[in-house]
Amino acid sequence: MALSGGADSLALTAAAVAEVGEVHALVVDHRLQDGSGEVAERAADRARLLGCASARVLAVEVTGPGGVEAAARAARYEALREARADRPVLLGHTLDDQAETVLLGLARGSGPRSIAGMRQWDDPWARPLLAVRRSTTERACGELGLQPWIDPHNADPGFTRVRLRTEALPLLEQILGGGVARALARTATHLQEDGEFLDAVATELRHAATVGDELDTGILGAAHPAVRRRAVREWLLVRGVGGLTDVQLRAADDLVGRWRGQGGVALGGGRAGSRLVLTRRHGRLSVGFVTSEPAGR
Amino acid sequence: MALSGGADSLALTAAAVAEVGEVHALVVDHRLQDGSGEVAERAADRARLLGCASARVLAVEVTGPGGVEAAARAARYEALREARADRPVLLGHTLDDQAETVLLGLARGSGPRSIAGMRQWDDPWARPLLAVRRSTTERACGELGLQPWIDPHNADPGFTRVRLRTEALPLLEQILGGGVARALARTATHLQEDGEFLDAVATELRHAATVGDELDTGILGAAHPAVRRRAVREWLLVRGVGGLTDVQLRAADDLVGRWRGQGGVALGGGRAGSRLVLTRRHGRLSVGFVTSEPAGR
Repeated sequence: MALSGGADSLALTAAAVAEVGEVHALVVDHRLQDGSGEVAERAADRARLLGCASARVLAVEVTGPGGVEAAARAARYEALREARADRPVLLGHTLDDQAETVLLGLARGSGPRSIAGMRQWDDPWARPLLAVRRSTTERACGELGLQPWIDPHNADPGFTRVRLRTEALPLLEQILGGGVARALARTATHLQEDGEFLDAVATELRHAATVGDELDTGILGAAHPAVRRRAVREWLLVRGVGGLTDVQLRAADDLVGRWRGQGGVALGGGRAGSRLVLTRRHGRLSVGFVTSEPAGR
Repeated sequence: MALSGGADSLALTAAAVAEVGEVHALVVDHRLQDGSGEVAERAADRARLLGCASARVLAVEVTGPGGVEAAARAARYEALREARADRPVLLGHTLDDQAETVLLGLARGSGPRSIAGMRQWDDPWARPLLAVRRSTTERACGELGLQPWIDPHNADPGFTRVRLRTEALPLLEQILGGGVARALARTATHLQEDGEFLDAVATELRHAATVGDELDTGILGAAHPAVRRRAVREWLLVRGVGGLTDVQLRAADDLVGRWRGQGGVALGGGRAGSRLVLTRRHGRLSVGFVTSEPAGR
């Protein structure tokens, strides 16, 4: 159980002890606030009182790219992954977290994948509260006589997620007449199901179109664009090329669907002095490094 | 060309005359505001000046369910459909309209379909500006020396769409660091492509599973839930049962995917004293009326 001490994870810890029996609590100390160590120790004590078989504090170093939120998230998941000892990890994400995640994904705009939100089961992560409102976990804590910890970061408007929670979602609920959080969560579930099927079909297509290190555009071209794009994306991922933008993926697909002899598609940074490029030659797609230095050097 | 006289449709009219040649303008007068007739006539004059082969004002009566916005929309499309004389109808919807439509659809939460937005070509409707910003049409009008009509309804916070445009989208742009309208539009395009493929697969499944007036749950059950649900929904639509909620569709699917001998699923209002119900019997789904009066009466 990943326990922060907040209402969500506290309620889930109590429920997990009651339902599962042997529960081990992991409390991540992000060390971003004064006294975070004591907060973490208190949460671990609480876990033991609630009947957890063990409770450990994992102190992490939050560094890395993409702002504090992203870096804290990465450090947290990494620490949990290391400490989980081959067991699944319960996370306290609620329907409200899911709604915020969908809205966050909208900004990225890289398609259905970015607004499909979090999964209920995404090995090793389990989110049993994804259909439960945050307010329900708060009420559960009240009924159990538990005083949840209130993270001051949850009110800090410097965080994108906090502003979505405290400003954007309430405004949308007001304009659209309520039910927005539930609607966003429902949309995420639908998109996950659709994505699962589309990905399965795309994997089949990728296998069928793979010829050695290359991808056959004839076989790809006969498929529906929605599947074809996923197959090319997956093929690139398998070859270690990830993090592509929508524009790059569309350009990659144009090598199949709108072929008119155009040049390769730059896939982002390569080693110094070279770029990773997707090219079409003799009806096949291949990925390779192209030296960006002038010829002859 | 459906011309309101606003910047979007005015710019598109000018472009259509230049590109297409013979353009016939249709101006809908919703008769919701004083002087709407003169506004419509002025737009029709403008259309003739811009080189349209003809320009007609279609006066409509806005009545019906679902609020003024929905009723005006229904009346407008009906009038255009009647007047179009078998020609396609150009609509001035921009990328910004698309973004608003996606946000509106999120509130409904009835799945990917409700956030897939408007289509670029949806016979007989054509929306060539769906990838163009509203501000671009305003600049185009400026360059052409055209003074667009500014609909006072576009600033009326009594309309959901207006509040999304003037409050929710700017707030989201601010919180999420810009690019939200474009991201919403891009998401819509992706979802349309995905939906097109999923619908095609679902249609095949529906045909395969149809046995007379019934649907075979064995054949449905072997399919992926994402496809199965679409097939059941489509089958119900073909049988004249539309407007179902997500909850109803999930319950309908549970008759296939989570069968445990449960009762039928109410599909909404039927004739007086009877309800339309989807039931499973002997491994087949069927739709029928069930009298809701007590037995024996």
